[in-house]
Amino acid sequence: MRHDLKAIIDDIVADMRAETERGTVASYIPGLASADPNRFGLAVVTAEGEVILGGDAETGFSIQSISKVFTLTLALGKVGNALWDRVGREPSGSAFNSIVQLERENGIPRNPFINAGAIVISDVNLAGHRTGDAIGELINFLRYLTDDGSIVVDPAIAQSEAEHGYRNAALANYMRAFGNLQNPVEPVLASYFNQCAIEMTCHQLARAGRFLMLDGRHPGGGQVVSPARARRINALMLTCGHYDASGDFAFSVGMPGKSGVGGGILAIAPGKASVAVWSPGLNANGNSHLGTRALERLTTETGWSVFSADHN
Amino acid sequence: MRHDLKAIIDDIVADMRAETERGTVASYIPGLASADPNRFGLAVVTAEGEVILGGDAETGFSIQSISKVFTLTLALGKVGNALWDRVGREPSGSAFNSIVQLERENGIPRNPFINAGAIVISDVNLAGHRTGDAIGELINFLRYLTDDGSIVVDPAIAQSEAEHGYRNAALANYMRAFGNLQNPVEPVLASYFNQCAIEMTCHQLARAGRFLMLDGRHPGGGQVVSPARARRINALMLTCGHYDASGDFAFSVGMPGKSGVGGGILAIAPGKASVAVWSPGLNANGNSHLGTRALERLTTETGWSVFSADHN
Amino acid sequence: MRHDLKAIIDDIVADMRAETERGTVASYIPGLASADPNRFGLAVVTAEGEVILGGDAETGFSIQSISKVFTLTLALGKVGNALWDRVGREPSGSAFNSIVQLERENGIPRNPFINAGAIVISDVNLAGHRTGDAIGELINFLRYLTDDGSIVVDPAIAQSEAEHGYRNAALANYMRAFGNLQNPVEPVLASYFNQCAIEMTCHQLARAGRFLMLDGRHPGGGQVVSPARARRINALMLTCGHYDASGDFAFSVGMPGKSGVGGGILAIAPGKASVAVWSPGLNANGNSHLGTRALERLTTETGWSVFSADHN
Amino acid sequence: MRHDLKAIIDDIVADMRAETERGTVASYIPGLASADPNRFGLAVVTAEGEVILGGDAETGFSIQSISKVFTLTLALGKVGNALWDRVGREPSGSAFNSIVQLERENGIPRNPFINAGAIVISDVNLAGHRTGDAIGELINFLRYLTDDGSIVVDPAIAQSEAEHGYRNAALANYMRAFGNLQNPVEPVLASYFNQCAIEMTCHQLARAGRFLMLDGRHPGGGQVVSPARARRINALMLTCGHYDASGDFAFSVGMPGKSGVGGGILAIAPGKASVAVWSPGLNANGNSHLGTRALERLTTETGWSVFSADHN
Repeated sequence: MRHDLKAIIDDIVADMRAETERGTVASYIPGLASADPNRFGLAVVTAEGEVILGGDAETGFSIQSISKVFTLTLALGKVGNALWDRVGREPSGSAFNSIVQLERENGIPRNPFINAGAIVISDVNLAGHRTGDAIGELINFLRYLTDDGSIVVDPAIAQSEAEHGYRNAALANYMRAFGNLQNPVEPVLASYFNQCAIEMTCHQLARAGRFLMLDGRHPGGGQVVSPARARRINALMLTCGHYDASGDFAFSVGMPGKSGVGGGILAIAPGKASVAVWSPGLNANGNSHLGTRALERLTTETGWSVFSADHN
Repeated sequence: MRHDLKAIIDDIVADMRAETERGTVASYIPGLASADPNRFGLAVVTAEGEVILGGDAETGFSIQSISKVFTLTLALGKVGNALWDRVGREPSGSAFNSIVQLERENGIPRNPFINAGAIVISDVNLAGHRTGDAIGELINFLRYLTDDGSIVVDPAIAQSEAEHGYRNAALANYMRAFGNLQNPVEPVLASYFNQCAIEMTCHQLARAGRFLMLDGRHPGGGQVVSPARARRINALMLTCGHYDASGDFAFSVGMPGKSGVGGGILAIAPGKASVAVWSPGLNANGNSHLGTRALERLTTETGWSVFSADHN
Repeated sequence: MRHDLKAIIDDIVADMRAETERGTVASYIPGLASADPNRFGLAVVTAEGEVILGGDAETGFSIQSISKVFTLTLALGKVGNALWDRVGREPSGSAFNSIVQLERENGIPRNPFINAGAIVISDVNLAGHRTGDAIGELINFLRYLTDDGSIVVDPAIAQSEAEHGYRNAALANYMRAFGNLQNPVEPVLASYFNQCAIEMTCHQLARAGRFLMLDGRHPGGGQVVSPARARRINALMLTCGHYDASGDFAFSVGMPGKSGVGGGILAIAPGKASVAVWSPGLNANGNSHLGTRALERLTTETGWSVFSADHN
Repeated sequence: MRHDLKAIIDDIVADMRAETERGTVASYIPGLASADPNRFGLAVVTAEGEVILGGDAETGFSIQSISKVFTLTLALGKVGNALWDRVGREPSGSAFNSIVQLERENGIPRNPFINAGAIVISDVNLAGHRTGDAIGELINFLRYLTDDGSIVVDPAIAQSEAEHGYRNAALANYMRAFGNLQNPVEPVLASYFNQCAIEMTCHQLARAGRFLMLDGRHPGGGQVVSPARARRINALMLTCGHYDASGDFAFSVGMPGKSGVGGGILAIAPGKASVAVWSPGLNANGNSHLGTRALERLTTETGWSVFSADHN
């Protein structure tokens, strides 16, 4: 099936570009609201190192919550399984639960991919650093994963996030009240808002995800994380990567994935491919409308669902 | 790695039998409370048809909630995707949410594997039947899946379930108040209590799960369900199969699975194996303590995690 | 001010009869849905024994939840303060909380005036009785309080309540699961549905409430309850008597009161008057629209608010 | 009964001073933790102007949440009933609900006496002011109500509140996210922390409450608020003044009251008396243990419960 991959991807890209129903662009900050809903990009890097790009695969966009995959990886490298004393590993049930759940569970966020969990992880990664250094470390990690030194934060987006970040400030203060932040609230939030504002292309993102399809191995040599840790990050992406639509994404697409409100999704077919897709229009659950549809098509036509027998 | 499978399983069985920490047997009804915590069984049926049995793999036990996998399959066969108008596909967040969530979401259960969802599915499967006929249909389906005519309901367990079923009666009445049951409450509950009381062995259960590792195909020929439906049932088992420990099971084991309070777990390695394990002692989340540990060992040593690159 | 009372009441009745905005009649059972929204009755019995009737004060209506005041009084007579081990004394926060709250608080209803609490009280009053005897005892108590032997249950309403009582059946089964019902669910619910179906007139209801304005004393002689108990029942009516609009009723009217979905309200001005009002149209909170407005007028013009200095 | 008042109070004070079970002093900030649990003060000002002081009635303490009564009064004076678009009037159900409820109800706090509601009121009172001016206005109001120019903020307490105020910061940011704060979070919180740190004696507090027993009238002449507004503030104190023990306080004491975590309680007998009590040890609900008991005694022996017939 693999020799048809280029044709499959070209078809999907052509169809997605022609779609008229494209979802709704996020509007809570100007830097996201100005995105062009007609954009669509798709990048696939296979386990064998083949790269297939389609559409706007080389256009940068705000990765937003996709950054949580990489900050989680860094935090696990720093504190290992002790992280799970401060963050859970269960789906959150519903967006509604976000702050309810913190109240019920004494300030321990349900998983690392909801905002509260990612803020705790920012706190872990900030330890002993200033905000700038923590962000520098994350950028360096992404440059290492992608072999691409051009990845940067979009400062205008970071600034806008901070100005509209009252709900995240509420979460951070709330967890601090429970003793689940060790640094002051301000630099933790600054770090969090900066990580959300990282700009990457589909091509860069698919490269950054390669270690997750390769049992933790960097294609250039060495282990980024152990095979067990790679499996577990994939598991968390599958069960928790799309907020309260995680079950639906697993049901429809069947790949571990993490979405961002900028319209990007990173999806992993373990042993097969690292996939990044981008289209700014979102569906009712806040995930890229065409991105989700494209991945559903891709997984159906390639057999890349982890739930499929023929994915061998 | 496959030629070592017998040795791996023998090791696991020997270790689990020797374990002294065995969890706590469910005590809410006598028929479960009397189970011997020293029992441990494991059965693996591979995609190639190889069968490996260990420990008490031929001893019958109450499958309890594992039955929800099979009633879901039947209901999808009857009403197809219209089922999803009456039951969701998202993890429930927490055990606590069960009835809270019904109140918030107008009587629509979060997924088919929590009790409320399974009761709706009993209602679907009851349509046009008497309770006895609905249970007969389910038993016949299990006999067809296993090629084994000896599967039956344990009537004493069914009776005990009914006598202690006030919480399930509450859920059923509550959903009926929202119009999400079409039959009267009593026969729906009777049907539900009977399905929970089905007795099977690990060997039978692993055989019954074969279609889920084979993209829906019955090893004896023909499709039980379409490949897409098999993938989707696997996806639901992975995201929702262990109540509020589903995320943890995905994280630790990495296989779609469904547990029952009788101590059984059915787990699927798509394209590789159908696995059933049984040990009556439960962990704090209500899932088999040694069963979960055994599956974690098995998946680590076989590479059967769906999140692993080397599962090819 | 008291010598103007008749004039005040006549004015209110005339204005309420002329109102065009009359709320919405309860429609979940036929016996309530057929009520004429143009009906309005008001009855005042003063501490001195004066009786002032206005409008349809002698027309019978379904007292529904107002019965909870009298079953609470009976249950306190049977088990005293031990009742508070099984039912709380706090406002419920919101209608939404009804079953959520039971789940969080182990089957202990928040107060005796929400449905769950009243069902526990039915269970208390049922002890050692058959359903018919329990209802007989309640009817006898109401006849004693009113000196009126004509009070009866409307059997058609009781039957309809039972047929539409799935949500109450859910509550009862749920509490039974927590061990907070001592009798089987069916007779408890039968008793509850019958008490809701008692038919009384405003005149009868105002007479039945006399002991609550008189520190527990029956105007015909003797104590119905102790002065402390009368105060406490009044306190519960003020804080919990109007579901999630209890705060608003206290704010606007300032008298202890208990409403029913049939459009009746019983309100007490301690030391001053027992008041019953009836108009079938309900406001958004499920309380009589014109009944609430009439009481607000009455309390303003008489100084009967318990929060007023000039109520002396 | 009134001529015995001095004797009743002397008895209560003597008994409370002798009590060995005195509750637990609040410990979250040093300024409260250092309070002497052996202190007990009681002050009664009657409608006729009689003043009866007992125990430590002239010792200052931190009024904490009792300040919410006075900031509410000020805010109603500024914006009138428009306030109720931004704050509800219903009991909150439970402490647990505090932030859950905000999430469910779009950032509208349930009532003005939970922290979230009081923060909105600080925002209202801050409009057009700097923090210092807003606090100055409140202090001036208290000096006017008490005819006592010595009332001040304890700056050490205010500073401690700010340093431990993460949960309040979470609430404020959360409401700002919903658009229910019009000023920046920082000065609103600064204002809120300062009002909690006001120091008053029982004597001063009982004087400050006089307008609430006098239908809004200042004993020195003129109306502080209209009679209707005084009634309504009393109603809110009764239904919402003791967090999730408000129902119990109404049940046991039967007077509108507002407690503070410093161990003070202000209670009003409309037309009869304004009462302030102070004892630093708190009960499980966070209300003064001996203060509550003293008020229960007082109301029983004076007939001052608003639910009593003989309060005339």
